[in-house]
Amino acid sequence: MLLKETVQKIRELDNEAMEKARRHQKDLIKPCGSLGMLEEVAVKIAGITGEITPLLEKKVVVTCAGDHGVAAQKVSAADQEVTRQMVQGFLNGGAAINVIARHTGAKVICVDLGMIRPVDDPRVREHRIGPGTADFTGGPAMSREQAKAAVEAGIRVAAEEIAGGAQLLATGDMGIGNTTPSTAILAAFTGLPVSLITGKGTGIDGEARRRKVEVVEQGLKANRPDPREGLAVLAGVGGFEIGAIAGVILGGAASRVPVVIDGFISGAGAMIARSLAPRALDFVIASHLSKEPGHKVMLTWLGVSPMLQMNMRLGEGTGAALSFSLIDAALKIAGEMATFEQAGVSDAGLR
Amino acid sequence: MLLKETVQKIRELDNEAMEKARRHQKDLIKPCGSLGMLEEVAVKIAGITGEITPLLEKKVVVTCAGDHGVAAQKVSAADQEVTRQMVQGFLNGGAAINVIARHTGAKVICVDLGMIRPVDDPRVREHRIGPGTADFTGGPAMSREQAKAAVEAGIRVAAEEIAGGAQLLATGDMGIGNTTPSTAILAAFTGLPVSLITGKGTGIDGEARRRKVEVVEQGLKANRPDPREGLAVLAGVGGFEIGAIAGVILGGAASRVPVVIDGFISGAGAMIARSLAPRALDFVIASHLSKEPGHKVMLTWLGVSPMLQMNMRLGEGTGAALSFSLIDAALKIAGEMATFEQAGVSDAGLR
Repeated sequence: MLLKETVQKIRELDNEAMEKARRHQKDLIKPCGSLGMLEEVAVKIAGITGEITPLLEKKVVVTCAGDHGVAAQKVSAADQEVTRQMVQGFLNGGAAINVIARHTGAKVICVDLGMIRPVDDPRVREHRIGPGTADFTGGPAMSREQAKAAVEAGIRVAAEEIAGGAQLLATGDMGIGNTTPSTAILAAFTGLPVSLITGKGTGIDGEARRRKVEVVEQGLKANRPDPREGLAVLAGVGGFEIGAIAGVILGGAASRVPVVIDGFISGAGAMIARSLAPRALDFVIASHLSKEPGHKVMLTWLGVSPMLQMNMRLGEGTGAALSFSLIDAALKIAGEMATFEQAGVSDAGLR
Repeated sequence: MLLKETVQKIRELDNEAMEKARRHQKDLIKPCGSLGMLEEVAVKIAGITGEITPLLEKKVVVTCAGDHGVAAQKVSAADQEVTRQMVQGFLNGGAAINVIARHTGAKVICVDLGMIRPVDDPRVREHRIGPGTADFTGGPAMSREQAKAAVEAGIRVAAEEIAGGAQLLATGDMGIGNTTPSTAILAAFTGLPVSLITGKGTGIDGEARRRKVEVVEQGLKANRPDPREGLAVLAGVGGFEIGAIAGVILGGAASRVPVVIDGFISGAGAMIARSLAPRALDFVIASHLSKEPGHKVMLTWLGVSPMLQMNMRLGEGTGAALSFSLIDAALKIAGEMATFEQAGVSDAGLR
């Protein structure tokens, strides 16, 4: 019931607030539109929150971790144990996401959706669906019930954080091998040729990349997920943490809290979310274009545009957390800039 | 003599420091290269400063203002008086550059290189070369001596700020009409067809844009600037503030202080700087890709890659100041992230 109720709660953007925000942008001392996406982000956030010049001070990165049965097919350069080691790294504060989140004033929370072995630490939010997914080359990665449970876990975490005051959420991921299910999800929804959208992930090349293409194709052939059904795609070729990312997006959208998505894996989660509730994407802000070759078309399919193009491909939520600084700037511009009238600047030709 | 001496002081990047910085990046708990340009920026700054994990806390945006005789040809949607009004706006702290610079912890200084009328305020750095340039459709925008003086003014301002402790500089511009000389500079150096690289500036379209193409072509025909001579290009079709931006870059490079360039007008200044001292570009960091159609090829010619792609086209230094947050993140990553050894993370396949 939680999933269904959450989807039903997602409403339209506040068009009146957006129109007010657009008019306000025209009053500020700059040529209209000259701050590009900074203006667009401010207008979108007005539509989400209903406020014209809010400050979103309480920011939370929700980093979702899970393991992948398909890693047995040698699709990643890294050892699967690294998922767990990195979660430990997040708790210790020395990972890239910790450094970037401290820099942009965000909290990082880590959710275990199903690593092979749990990390025994109360700071990890335990929403374990299982000890890693099944290898999707021989059947579904998870059952339909597990898929729903993964999405609902994300919804619950988002709701908890929002109840705790979160005003801006970001999604992040940790799961060795998870560019493989993300590629499969992208192919399942779009029908794009797998060879065109398969990248090097954490660092494979040549023969290993060709192997990854075959593995994704096998998974799609073995499961034939129906692209009209998000939970079917997630169950067939997805991952627990990808489902939770979809849930965080749905949960944010239902409570009218903007959700910033990170890179390729978060994008795959957003595809599941859009499939379950198309309107949810109105509440999503894209942070960066990653180096994964399929990411550009994925963002186009999602209908969102990235602000950063820095060839990042780490995940964890790093790109999303980095973009918090840009979002803060967009909101401060709306809130702090002088108007033509206040500053005595001639607006002829500039509005 | 100042220009010549400054150019002679520009040395190579510190290759040893860059190699150390690259090795350090490989030790951090992430797949090697997975933070993309964040890693590259940190390595470049190591090459500039000689330090592996510096923090560049004292940041200064040098916003250079000047007026343009070519504005008489109606190449801009805005009134020329807006140059001066906006400089007043910078002093009052209500312009976009003020808001963004406060957000990223930077100081903004405003240099008058030759507005039509000066602003009578001691906070403006007075380096007036003249009351606006001449209309370059009928002859050179300025004399060769004025071109040199404009560049040397930028060198002086950079030197003053560095003497005052500046560790990171950014260039910005204010000058109604200045996408027109910038387009002419791009065409003069590259030979690209003017119609392909002419944009809407602050907001012209249709017939006005076609007129701007003609004006740039007239300027190039009237002055035939020699693309092998930066000062000849600047004198023929440039602007006072564009010359000063070139000077800030040369001054930063000579003192091994990184200089972040803003958009299209700062890029034109960087083209002049590269022409005077090719090595100067090693000390330049590109902030954003603007909406001006010629900006992409301009950055390619300069050999630098932008981090942000947000369709910004305001100038003032806004994109550069926004990117300070990304540069800070890059340096904190180098300084604060744990190593594989410290964190007990398996590095197999990740270095």
